[in-house]
Amino acid sequence: MRVPYGEMVSLLKEKLVSRGMDESRAELSARLFADASADGVHTHGLNRFPKYVSLIDQGFIDVSASPTLESRIGMIERWNGNRGPGNLNAYSAMKRAIDLAKDNAMGVVTLRNTNHWMRAGNYGLEAVRNGCIGILWTNAMPNMPAWGARDARIGNNPMVLAVPYRDTPVIVDLAMSMFSYGKLERYALEGRECPVDGGFDSSGNLTRDPVAISESRQVLPMGYWKGSSLAIALDLIVSLISGGRTTKDIGDLPCETEVSQIFMAISLDAFPDHEDMEKRIGETLSYIDSSIPREENGSIHYPGEGMKRTRCESMRLGVFAEDSVWEKVKAL
Amino acid sequence: MRVPYGEMVSLLKEKLVSRGMDESRAELSARLFADASADGVHTHGLNRFPKYVSLIDQGFIDVSASPTLESRIGMIERWNGNRGPGNLNAYSAMKRAIDLAKDNAMGVVTLRNTNHWMRAGNYGLEAVRNGCIGILWTNAMPNMPAWGARDARIGNNPMVLAVPYRDTPVIVDLAMSMFSYGKLERYALEGRECPVDGGFDSSGNLTRDPVAISESRQVLPMGYWKGSSLAIALDLIVSLISGGRTTKDIGDLPCETEVSQIFMAISLDAFPDHEDMEKRIGETLSYIDSSIPREENGSIHYPGEGMKRTRCESMRLGVFAEDSVWEKVKAL
Repeated sequence: MRVPYGEMVSLLKEKLVSRGMDESRAELSARLFADASADGVHTHGLNRFPKYVSLIDQGFIDVSASPTLESRIGMIERWNGNRGPGNLNAYSAMKRAIDLAKDNAMGVVTLRNTNHWMRAGNYGLEAVRNGCIGILWTNAMPNMPAWGARDARIGNNPMVLAVPYRDTPVIVDLAMSMFSYGKLERYALEGRECPVDGGFDSSGNLTRDPVAISESRQVLPMGYWKGSSLAIALDLIVSLISGGRTTKDIGDLPCETEVSQIFMAISLDAFPDHEDMEKRIGETLSYIDSSIPREENGSIHYPGEGMKRTRCESMRLGVFAEDSVWEKVKAL
Repeated sequence: MRVPYGEMVSLLKEKLVSRGMDESRAELSARLFADASADGVHTHGLNRFPKYVSLIDQGFIDVSASPTLESRIGMIERWNGNRGPGNLNAYSAMKRAIDLAKDNAMGVVTLRNTNHWMRAGNYGLEAVRNGCIGILWTNAMPNMPAWGARDARIGNNPMVLAVPYRDTPVIVDLAMSMFSYGKLERYALEGRECPVDGGFDSSGNLTRDPVAISESRQVLPMGYWKGSSLAIALDLIVSLISGGRTTKDIGDLPCETEVSQIFMAISLDAFPDHEDMEKRIGETLSYIDSSIPREENGSIHYPGEGMKRTRCESMRLGVFAEDSVWEKVKAL
């Protein structure tokens, strides 16, 4: 089914207000979920909402908590997320990094003790809406085996790189695993295989079978040893700078909470050559998009273009929602 | 053959001095090459030296040029590499970022108009030797097809993440392609296949055959669409912030030169909790290393451990050099 964007926001907002969230915060949180779905990131949009509410109901997310500034260390600001809603915390940290970037070309803000930020790309989009490059990442609970290992001891630690470009910015939003658990679930529901190897089955064979991978919990890092190495370094860097929990430390908790995040914004307006930048970005993007496609009648798109098309469609026809998920959310 | 480290440095230094490089600069450049070989990164150590000298001889590398400060934009310093030796330029930019980090917790330095930095990990090692996290990347000439494309229009844009840890820091040093051309060459020489798919053959089939991939020039991005997206964003970010050439712009030149680079250093000493950091890093690293290995009798190592072992061996037994390469360098 397709649900008008405004209707989706209203329903989600109503559910959050019913959990004691302040009206304006509930509105923003609801929009961040609806934006994810509208952009086609269903796994971290509407589909994730029941889990978010369940974490509120269990007391892992404190609906009334906001980040507080703990210290300024040179140009870096360390904030405590106070176990508030992960998407509101991340939004506010990105906003703060953007403000710092407007004063100082670059702003760096960390969050410790925060919750899952849901759809990471939202905060990259906030950066580009303000004329900033965004570079941000989070750590996660242990959910991926290191390269060569069977048991999950590193996080998939999603990362976003965002570059402003007209109404269709470059948005790279990816986890260090080849496929997220949400994506595997989706493939399983659709009865499809992963397009490439996504992990190991419980006998230790590489497989494209999403069910076998979800069962073994042995997802493959993107680029094998490369994604594994990146995930390890991203976790150490973000937990050290933020003073927050490492992936290992998060694994000691009853669920994925109290994660560590970093938000960097770089304001392009601060640079003397900022007026040439749009032209330069455009040249690179058209050069890439005019590559010779591998498949006959194929076409190449830079990261962010597909999302933009989906967003336009969602605004015209309504946001896609699976009937069962929509009913589940209504019943919350 | 194995060559004592000091002997390797002497020979390389002598060759650089013979090209008009100042003695102390030649010594440092020679060391950076020997360090790469000593750490087992042969593709960007001794093996790459003849190409470096050839770029000097052709005038693409100006042996006497050093970086000059072009502007300070907030906390970011933009330097011009003046087409000097890429490894010396990168070393000096990293040093400057470290100095800034000592004053201000974090330092960000960009280089435009510089040359290939050879072995990227060297500058990450310089950061950790000074108690800093290092985050750095470069762009490159178009040498990899974007995901879905046949022709190379993006760079493999190598990146380093480095975290200090006792005498064995965490060093992640990787290109956005699954295998570098140097690595493919090496597999070919050894008559081996790539351990995983490394690119497409000229008929468009995924293959592990290093010769077929080198011929088609269709290397695979690490993690397929993921590495492709990352490479695109890394190029845009580094070229915008540095005011330097994009991958597309580098492609307009007769060879890979005038590249753009960024160096970030974060000084751990600046943080109030810096005394706990070593312990916290160690906990994560031992947790990962004690994973259950996938292979019987296998073992898991964090990124940087293998390199450290190779370095110790090189210092004890001499640095590995292929006879033919050693002879070639002697004849330069």
